[in-house]
Amino acid sequence: MSFRTIEWRDDKVVMIDQTRLPGEEVYCEYADYKSVAEAIRGMIIRGAPAIGVAAAMGIALGAREIIADTHESFLRQLDNVCDVMARTRPTAVNLFWAIERMKRVAAENCGGSLDQVREILKAEAIRIEEEDLELCKAIGRHGATLIPEGATILTHCNAGGLATAGYGTALGVIRAAHEGGKKIQVFADETRPWLQGARLTAWELMKDGIPVTLIADNMAGFFMKRGEITCCVVGADRIAANGDTANKIGTYSVAVLARENNIPFYVAAPTTTFDLTLASGDEIPIEERHSREVTHLQGFPVAPEGVRVRNPAFDVTPARYISGIITEKGVVTGDFLKELRTLVES
Amino acid sequence: MSFRTIEWRDDKVVMIDQTRLPGEEVYCEYADYKSVAEAIRGMIIRGAPAIGVAAAMGIALGAREIIADTHESFLRQLDNVCDVMARTRPTAVNLFWAIERMKRVAAENCGGSLDQVREILKAEAIRIEEEDLELCKAIGRHGATLIPEGATILTHCNAGGLATAGYGTALGVIRAAHEGGKKIQVFADETRPWLQGARLTAWELMKDGIPVTLIADNMAGFFMKRGEITCCVVGADRIAANGDTANKIGTYSVAVLARENNIPFYVAAPTTTFDLTLASGDEIPIEERHSREVTHLQGFPVAPEGVRVRNPAFDVTPARYISGIITEKGVVTGDFLKELRTLVES
Repeated sequence: MSFRTIEWRDDKVVMIDQTRLPGEEVYCEYADYKSVAEAIRGMIIRGAPAIGVAAAMGIALGAREIIADTHESFLRQLDNVCDVMARTRPTAVNLFWAIERMKRVAAENCGGSLDQVREILKAEAIRIEEEDLELCKAIGRHGATLIPEGATILTHCNAGGLATAGYGTALGVIRAAHEGGKKIQVFADETRPWLQGARLTAWELMKDGIPVTLIADNMAGFFMKRGEITCCVVGADRIAANGDTANKIGTYSVAVLARENNIPFYVAAPTTTFDLTLASGDEIPIEERHSREVTHLQGFPVAPEGVRVRNPAFDVTPARYISGIITEKGVVTGDFLKELRTLVES
Repeated sequence: MSFRTIEWRDDKVVMIDQTRLPGEEVYCEYADYKSVAEAIRGMIIRGAPAIGVAAAMGIALGAREIIADTHESFLRQLDNVCDVMARTRPTAVNLFWAIERMKRVAAENCGGSLDQVREILKAEAIRIEEEDLELCKAIGRHGATLIPEGATILTHCNAGGLATAGYGTALGVIRAAHEGGKKIQVFADETRPWLQGARLTAWELMKDGIPVTLIADNMAGFFMKRGEITCCVVGADRIAANGDTANKIGTYSVAVLARENNIPFYVAAPTTTFDLTLASGDEIPIEERHSREVTHLQGFPVAPEGVRVRNPAFDVTPARYISGIITEKGVVTGDFLKELRTLVES
């Protein structure tokens, strides 16, 4: 890939500013954990796996900021740092997964000096980033086998390199199929209100030379009905024990339309996206964001002033619409309730 | 209603400029048929019934512009005027219906002087406008009986006063239910790419004091699945003999999602929207519009430069998803193929 989504550099966290794409490719540096939390909340960085990496790096920064005499005081303050991170976005479970992992590493390594613990946390955050990239490549390898030669793949939102440490989940599958020499093309839903499809997916696929066609979200059904879509591949923000999947708002509609038109609908996500503590998707908290995302485009009003707005940022696709969940450990089909648990424990 | 969509005034055609709503309420005057055709193509006026009225008034203007010695020459030139009108938008059948009606009236009234014919054509155009308003009110009366007390009604695009001579088809049903004292509220899909829902439906419902909540198109399924939508009511641009209905892009998706969630899905349209010469919706021509509607918002780019785009402006909802077609003559349910023909002949 010809860009970096997030990296640790000179004891700062560097992120590509996703609010300014595709117009400008700007990299922002963050030196403290609060500004990283603000970047997550403000969607400078977004996408479940990328948020997890950002939270881990933010915590590593926070560890450097803590002034403490004792390990106990250090860990208490680190808990506060973690709480700030946890309050940024409620839906993606990778965020909470990364926070828990950083907490555990801190607790397990309190034998040495505080500076040693800080170094260990920094190394762990970088490891999470590196692992995420590996997970994506493994997802790509497994998923590519499902993509037929000549396929037109519909995707929603951006589950790409920009949503992960790199390579992507849904777009990882697409990249792997493309790298494997298959002649494929992508239809990208623009994904209102934040336009991740138009701004991010189209941008990163064009950068990598993968043919992409941009459509409005409400056009997906039209092309499915006309037989122009071979399969759908999307990412995930949280997957419950029964396979119900929370992902960007509009994913549920894509899944229903795919089912109606006998088109396979795949979810691509690392097992870090599983939340087996939840029996079903009904328990996944859904973030509602500010009305201005709907009423204004690039700061310009497109709706009457004062209009009432609803703006749920995610929806839940029931498992029965999902043909398969593509993970780094393989593709799960059929009895998700049994298979997901087996996969995590393997 | 507190605005006029289109009217004949001082031998000019006056239209509210729908490209500038909701920010500005500006009325444009047109004194020649070519500028009316341009206004239809440029979507200064849109909505199937409103386009029909505009075409008729444009032809009446054209009749005044024609310089002719003989009735034969007049009718030949009028045919040219009609051809220009017919080439503005391909999908809405009301356009062609209005053109045919004006042609027939011209042919049938060539006994008198050309000035008399011109007056008759002007009167006919105004009659089409007045009839359309009456049709909408009758649609409203029939449709209101289908709306339960306390209903939340989802609508797509704008099938309102702005899409007709006034009052609206889908929004006519909603207005009639509201005027009848029912406590109802509306969820309006914003309707990308042209944002008719955000810009027009929200605006005209707020003007009339009918509670409206704006959502992005891809959120409709979320609210249906959560049980927050009582029924869907949309307009139509052309209805084939079997009930298949062409309407704004995204309507098909709304219908599929409604069916999946056991929510009634109604189409509201005057019988002038029927095209019984077409056996099914497969034969309805679908307009594809400029990519810039998708890539730019208010002139500002939201997608990478040069990205490939598809932009179909309409889709076809198969009759099997439609719970009922609400017309000025009553509500058709069940066997559309038989019932639509009976209705037209009644």
